Amino acid sequence: MDYTYSFLFTIRIRYSETDQMGYCYYGNYAQYLEVGRVEAIRNLGVVYKELEKKGILLPVSEFSIRYKSPAFYDDELTIITKIDRITGARIYFSYVITCEDKIIAQAETTLVFLDKLSERPMQCPDFFHEKLKKYAK
Amino acid sequence: MDYTYSFLFTIRIRYSETDQMGYCYYGNYAQYLEVGRVEAIRNLGVVYKELEKKGILLPVSEFSIRYKSPAFYDDELTIITKIDRITGARIYFSYVITCEDKIIAQAETTLVFLDKLSERPMQCPDFFHEKLKKYAK
Amino acid sequence: MDYTYSFLFTIRIRYSETDQMGYCYYGNYAQYLEVGRVEAIRNLGVVYKELEKKGILLPVSEFSIRYKSPAFYDDELTIITKIDRITGARIYFSYVITCEDKIIAQAETTLVFLDKLSERPMQCPDFFHEKLKKYAK
Amino acid sequence: MDYTYSFLFTIRIRYSETDQMGYCYYGNYAQYLEVGRVEAIRNLGVVYKELEKKGILLPVSEFSIRYKSPAFYDDELTIITKIDRITGARIYFSYVITCEDKIIAQAETTLVFLDKLSERPMQCPDFFHEKLKKYAK
Repeated sequence: MDYTYSFLFTIRIRYSETDQMGYCYYGNYAQYLEVGRVEAIRNLGVVYKELEKKGILLPVSEFSIRYKSPAFYDDELTIITKIDRITGARIYFSYVITCEDKIIAQAETTLVFLDKLSERPMQCPDFFHEKLKKYAK
Repeated sequence: MDYTYSFLFTIRIRYSETDQMGYCYYGNYAQYLEVGRVEAIRNLGVVYKELEKKGILLPVSEFSIRYKSPAFYDDELTIITKIDRITGARIYFSYVITCEDKIIAQAETTLVFLDKLSERPMQCPDFFHEKLKKYAK
Repeated sequence: MDYTYSFLFTIRIRYSETDQMGYCYYGNYAQYLEVGRVEAIRNLGVVYKELEKKGILLPVSEFSIRYKSPAFYDDELTIITKIDRITGARIYFSYVITCEDKIIAQAETTLVFLDKLSERPMQCPDFFHEKLKKYAK
Repeated sequence: MDYTYSFLFTIRIRYSETDQMGYCYYGNYAQYLEVGRVEAIRNLGVVYKELEKKGILLPVSEFSIRYKSPAFYDDELTIITKIDRITGARIYFSYVITCEDKIIAQAETTLVFLDKLSERPMQCPDFFHEKLKKYAK
């Protein structure tokens, strides 16, 4: 199923997240995307913490990112998180990170719904599809 | 120019690098790849720290990774870092991360030789190509 | 000079900041305190980024923390940051971190005003004291 | 019981661990100390991972550190970890971090033996005391 849902969240770059090049370290973006995802689904009414309590894990299976422009200490980044598609056990997010009017990075991740007990992939739960219903393409 | 150089380095997963899923957090792999790159070029006789002192930065412009199997606290990961190609200002690395006989992740990064003063891309320096000469395809 | 200034800021614990014990990793609090400090001085009208541009660095010289209760993924922490004292080149902050009505941690840091060029300690700048004037004990 | 056990381990500072001041970020030392502790007890024959599998957690309850000299990217740090004392449920470590002949930092941590199931402090297990027997003061 394809969706058109997107959500915007802002994050300020911490001093700890800079490197000696003076840039936001390239490895920190994975954390920002995670925050983007968590807030995007919270806004739909799905609290990731509660998912885990129900025995559903959502690890990342693929991640790719293109860095367009460096970001700096204290910059306020806007993370636009989109849910593009859910097929079986997989959910596909895409992201645009901007700072003021500049594109900082573009990224995609694939996550897998995993049954905590069996450690096996499982279908995306119905209540999750339900929350996204009005954003179906 | 295409190259066949590869280098192997091991990293033990720190407690700080785990998450509450009990896995090594997906965002930490970017750090491990960076360590893999730095040690791979050190083994060629190029110390990244010295590159920066010469006014040459090497930021990452693209990064993609596929997580094949989770890794856990205290696991000793083997990072196989390959230099695949250098074209103009770009250098392409690829990586395989294994733990015992299991593939943990496969990744690619593109980095750009950047002149620190002008903040503009620059050709890969000759001495760097020179170090790789015997690995030319 | 002793001061009574305090400032409150909230931070939500990221997934990346948990460990396999299910706790917020003990090493991450240093980052939270840094965010607390930066926001506390921003609220006074001092932007840390601008301090550095003026050639003034503020590294930490001492840090101590007592962990009273674990904090968990997605918890919203309240960081109460106090400026207790400035003497010569040193500034003393203390912190209380709470979550709902529970004390999570108590901490203190000492930072040193450092002249970027000479790399030597320098007196706390007058404009900084000025901002704190009305909070003098 | 007081002990005289100490263990030396080296860690190279990663690029991700630097900040825009060009220093190793002050918050990263907590990770280095954790690695120091883990390797110190591994050298005694206690694998921390196995402790957790036996249902024994060892969270940090207090941590203090004095930064004597900045450390930089690619520096090889020596972490000297000492077990100073075990009293009831608490174990006291102290640390000296050096780089070449310079002292970088001195630190202390208190950790608590915690029963995973009851989440209550527990006496340091006998086999742990046993491993340290020959280092008793």
